[in-house]
Amino acid sequence: MNAEIIAVGSELLLGQIANTNAQYISKQLAQLGINVYFHTAVGDNPARLKEAIEVAESRSNLLVFTGGLGPTKDDLTKETIAGHLGKELVFDEAALHSIEQYFVRSKRQMTENNKKQALVLEGSRILANDHGMAPGMFLEKGSRFYMLLPGPPKEMQPMFDAYGYVALQEKLTTKELIVSRVLRFFGIGESLLETEILDLIEKQSNPTIAPLAGEGEVTLRITCKHDSQEEAERLIDEAEKAIFERVGEFFYGYDDTTLAKELSKELGKHGLTISAAESLTGGLFQQEMTNIPGAGNVFSGGVVCYTNEVKQNVLSVKEETIANDGVVSEQCAIELAENVAKLIDTDIGISFTGVAGPDELEGHPVGTVYIGISIKGQPTTCEKLLLGGGRSANRSRSAKYGQFFLLKELQKL
Amino acid sequence: MNAEIIAVGSELLLGQIANTNAQYISKQLAQLGINVYFHTAVGDNPARLKEAIEVAESRSNLLVFTGGLGPTKDDLTKETIAGHLGKELVFDEAALHSIEQYFVRSKRQMTENNKKQALVLEGSRILANDHGMAPGMFLEKGSRFYMLLPGPPKEMQPMFDAYGYVALQEKLTTKELIVSRVLRFFGIGESLLETEILDLIEKQSNPTIAPLAGEGEVTLRITCKHDSQEEAERLIDEAEKAIFERVGEFFYGYDDTTLAKELSKELGKHGLTISAAESLTGGLFQQEMTNIPGAGNVFSGGVVCYTNEVKQNVLSVKEETIANDGVVSEQCAIELAENVAKLIDTDIGISFTGVAGPDELEGHPVGTVYIGISIKGQPTTCEKLLLGGGRSANRSRSAKYGQFFLLKELQKL
Repeated sequence: MNAEIIAVGSELLLGQIANTNAQYISKQLAQLGINVYFHTAVGDNPARLKEAIEVAESRSNLLVFTGGLGPTKDDLTKETIAGHLGKELVFDEAALHSIEQYFVRSKRQMTENNKKQALVLEGSRILANDHGMAPGMFLEKGSRFYMLLPGPPKEMQPMFDAYGYVALQEKLTTKELIVSRVLRFFGIGESLLETEILDLIEKQSNPTIAPLAGEGEVTLRITCKHDSQEEAERLIDEAEKAIFERVGEFFYGYDDTTLAKELSKELGKHGLTISAAESLTGGLFQQEMTNIPGAGNVFSGGVVCYTNEVKQNVLSVKEETIANDGVVSEQCAIELAENVAKLIDTDIGISFTGVAGPDELEGHPVGTVYIGISIKGQPTTCEKLLLGGGRSANRSRSAKYGQFFLLKELQKL
Repeated sequence: MNAEIIAVGSELLLGQIANTNAQYISKQLAQLGINVYFHTAVGDNPARLKEAIEVAESRSNLLVFTGGLGPTKDDLTKETIAGHLGKELVFDEAALHSIEQYFVRSKRQMTENNKKQALVLEGSRILANDHGMAPGMFLEKGSRFYMLLPGPPKEMQPMFDAYGYVALQEKLTTKELIVSRVLRFFGIGESLLETEILDLIEKQSNPTIAPLAGEGEVTLRITCKHDSQEEAERLIDEAEKAIFERVGEFFYGYDDTTLAKELSKELGKHGLTISAAESLTGGLFQQEMTNIPGAGNVFSGGVVCYTNEVKQNVLSVKEETIANDGVVSEQCAIELAENVAKLIDTDIGISFTGVAGPDELEGHPVGTVYIGISIKGQPTTCEKLLLGGGRSANRSRSAKYGQFFLLKELQKL
């Protein structure tokens, strides 16, 4: 199966957004063993979209569309495809119901144009939209397949993962399975990780090992083609073992997990509760911990202590610490971690203080970060980081380092 | 002049990188008044690249290529174009010299394949590469223009800005500019907003008005083509005024701003400081406020009060409030807002309490949210929301609603 991804939206052609949907879908199609030969972006213009469809049909047998499924007059992807393929648009009752329910729930007024989103190509398989209103579609005609996905990545990605992937998998003629496992690493750069395991990557052909850099972390995807799931898993286990012998200390989890999820699980396993005192991260660590359903079982709360006054008055950092060591210091991090655990009454306190940027602070360069970890019954520890990113990246990596350090500590218990 | 941007590189089709070059060049071409009708991405494959060139020539008269100018065997953009146009590749002495100098400076050995980068299409105008080795090219043949740019954005962007832009400008017969302005709205859905201004959208042809849904917010893009920047701005002002008469209450800012940025600015204008008490949002509001450089001038800190104990013990919510009203209540939101302002010692306290999901709480359905706002010298207010999203969306929209409500309050001061 050869694929072309067609993104529809004038905002792409005006450069207002990048075509990240094409990137996401390409990755997923690669996992399915489907070759992607072209990406196309076209505006909200039916004549040019039709032209793009005709060109794509001349060279690919799977056409994946993103965008143009919304309620407004600009949104015309399915209308254009319907016209081109000679198909009718019909109301999908389930989608219509779910759109109506959305407006009932949010007590907002439903306008007539919202109904348009429940129109689908006749004879298509519906891909439910669990994060928005417009359903996706999958259609087979002649020797070709057409998949229609919404434009917003927050709707498109979960829809593709939950329904699009399977719909394609069922159509693949080969009975060879593609089994893949993602290993997630933190605290090691992509190029260093690749250097450490380069010989493994080069000598492997089945399974293959592919590194991929993410947001401040690195993942390795091990992919095995085999007609037996069991045998594929065994081959992947072997590859994983060889990788862990080299870089196991940086591994933290599999597939779609996150550091915050792994940390929550580990806290739950030990029956421990945690609180946080955040200066430079400004609530980011707590935000990530509480984004997990059921967070309240392990996370109680914390303090964002952005100013020196809050550090002193709410978290009782000693006046002499601020005068002598400054707030960007090991001593300050230790007091913050110990005192927030006392204030919030938790087993563990974690603290973040440092310089996010763009300006230096107390003579410390941007990227200087201290993370304090206080675990009941153990001496409080502090890790110092020197990060090289901009403000946002420094904040985000600090929060992740905190999760990683604590996770590794708890795994030793 | 109608343009198509052709990105060459298998890494795009494998989803390893996003096509940010197309986005960058599109923005620049829009400024020049050049319409971009298509983006194409194609792999490092001469046959398919030739196919893409032929398709592009059938519908555009400016073809901008990125990628495939490097030293390796995979890099074949100029070779393919040369073959297609019947042009020779010749050594550009300046480029060759600059490549040799690079290796002298970096004390590395120059391999033979590096010379290949100094080969250029005969008769083309050279676009110097001030940040790398491969020069760009600009070529006119018949009624068409061909621009070849390197793939790495760090080389491509400065080359386009310094040399590509001017080369195109000289060829433009019209001096028409495309001026656009983005208006950002919150608290109104995309379809309702469109319904309110549908007649304006439909009757306008210059400027045009186009809605775009973002993450929990809606934007309108007003775009005007005109040979005078001043007149374009005046026409945009007029359209904006008509829009504001209908939906001005939901407007919060222009272009690339965010609610948090506008709120920070407004707080700064009034010389007011703020703190936050966050239950369901778990630090998200504070995270967004502190992500802005210089946040400390208006934001002092706050408390994440995820459990009832933290609400009572740290933020002094009354026991009878929790017993009688529950934590998902107006009374709890009011006490949290007032008490966090006292604890952190700020002019304003804002609070978030409610049910993010997936489970209901105290008999309240998922999406029930109370936002308390305490402004020094004014009676504390509370807004109730009923949101219809999943956990993450409910948290994110709650934080944004808080920013929006407070921004609107401050604008009245």
